[in-house]
Amino acid sequence: MTQILIQEVVARDGLQNEDDFVPTDEKIKLINNLSESGVDKIEVTSFVSPKAVPNLKDAEEVMNGIERKEDVTYTALVPNLRGAKRALKTQVDEINLVVSVSETHNQKNLGMNTDESFQSFKEIIEYLDGSGIAVNGTLATSFGCPFEGNIDEDRVLRFVDQYVELNVSGITLADTTGMATPRQVYELVSKVRSKYPDLQLTLHFHNTRGMGLANVIEGIRAGVVRFDSSLGGLGGCPFAPGATGNICTEDLVHMLKFMGYDVRADLDHLIETSKSLEELLSHEVPGQIIKAGKITDLHPA
Amino acid sequence: MTQILIQEVVARDGLQNEDDFVPTDEKIKLINNLSESGVDKIEVTSFVSPKAVPNLKDAEEVMNGIERKEDVTYTALVPNLRGAKRALKTQVDEINLVVSVSETHNQKNLGMNTDESFQSFKEIIEYLDGSGIAVNGTLATSFGCPFEGNIDEDRVLRFVDQYVELNVSGITLADTTGMATPRQVYELVSKVRSKYPDLQLTLHFHNTRGMGLANVIEGIRAGVVRFDSSLGGLGGCPFAPGATGNICTEDLVHMLKFMGYDVRADLDHLIETSKSLEELLSHEVPGQIIKAGKITDLHPA
Repeated sequence: MTQILIQEVVARDGLQNEDDFVPTDEKIKLINNLSESGVDKIEVTSFVSPKAVPNLKDAEEVMNGIERKEDVTYTALVPNLRGAKRALKTQVDEINLVVSVSETHNQKNLGMNTDESFQSFKEIIEYLDGSGIAVNGTLATSFGCPFEGNIDEDRVLRFVDQYVELNVSGITLADTTGMATPRQVYELVSKVRSKYPDLQLTLHFHNTRGMGLANVIEGIRAGVVRFDSSLGGLGGCPFAPGATGNICTEDLVHMLKFMGYDVRADLDHLIETSKSLEELLSHEVPGQIIKAGKITDLHPA
Repeated sequence: MTQILIQEVVARDGLQNEDDFVPTDEKIKLINNLSESGVDKIEVTSFVSPKAVPNLKDAEEVMNGIERKEDVTYTALVPNLRGAKRALKTQVDEINLVVSVSETHNQKNLGMNTDESFQSFKEIIEYLDGSGIAVNGTLATSFGCPFEGNIDEDRVLRFVDQYVELNVSGITLADTTGMATPRQVYELVSKVRSKYPDLQLTLHFHNTRGMGLANVIEGIRAGVVRFDSSLGGLGGCPFAPGATGNICTEDLVHMLKFMGYDVRADLDHLIETSKSLEELLSHEVPGQIIKAGKITDLHPA
């Protein structure tokens, strides 16, 4: 029974994309609920400019307001040195850096080229030295770019090298706009793991084109045990209005548990929390399990 | 490049579950469009009692009204001898028999026990002897029953034996209400294929709990090359209102083609046909690709 770790991104990747600002106390309640459910990591917020992402303008209040559980890692996205300085004051467990493998996507998303991104990572990591804060490095558009299309595997591997040289504690390969196919996942992950067998590797999938859980299966087959997912399947992509977002946490946990994997998170608690999320947002979420029930939810004949 | 065969069930499994009757000429147009797209098999209709399924009361007109393509197999569901007699007059290529592995589900769905179902199959097959019509045998609830829960693998294997003894040309393992997990698919299919390596085996999945395409991946890994799917992901389950239906044809073909599999069906033609289906039905369908676009549909930076 392999243990699979569930890393919740709804509070950042999900709420960032909502039309409306979710009040700070509701965010804190949601994150506390996720901690209670027993997920292994929670991306709490992003220390991004409030102008760029007004939905997350309360990063400090949320980070400081949540109840921490010992066995949950609390992480936050940090786009630049300014964000790292803000994060440090809140005593996050980990910061999450992000660069796109696609030059075009990085320029559009972060307003700089990828060399400049890695230069700023160096400064951030030097700044955090001795703080005890772990650093995860995300590679956005690792499986495809909505502007450039195919992403060269060798370029992904070179970017992994660059993160490794910076001595990060973990790396995430992110399928930012849901372009990965199961075969591609198996092949790319196998190459990364063959070069860095001891690397703490996370996969971050979106279900934009319905392949999300199939990609997880191939990721596990290639040896990965850490997956990002979002409660209710929240989180989306501006290029695919109406399409589903990140892979859905409760759907993922449901599949893994009924396949016999060891998952710490409590499925029923996640389902209840996802239902409360629908109420909070006043709209349906893409997740299937809260509509269909678990496979063990039987019906009278 | 393994060839994967796409077997369309929207005209039967999909339209059967719609609230409104789709006019006969629209059904014919849809099926002709599917033939044009190059799917390998089409389940055209069901020769069921018009009282039981009013949406398919026009089975004969549809079967006789469509334009046949030589490389497409036209099949129809046949629930009993009366249905077989009706089907024979329309010269279908194949009839599709169905029995549930779950005794409770069979009783509820067909009003008889499973022994009675196999007895009636014997009569049907004797009746069709010499007609040149192929017979496929479907095992509904092969991966779980919404009333009974778990289905014993040995019972599925015994039912496969019974179909094989009847000398059917193919067998379908159907996950009628979307309860199969990827691991279960790999294990059950491996057992069936190990006992009957030359059996023409189809897998019929629903995406009720988001695992549909993951189940396809594991089915292929276990050696299956034939999959039922429904345009737009239409088709549903009365126990899961709001949940998705059958696995979606264009999402399936999209995944398989971009994984490098050889699929005869034309993806763009399927996408266009799915969009016209949404217009025809005046409601959204669950498929993702018609919302998100193909992974090769790039955006200006």
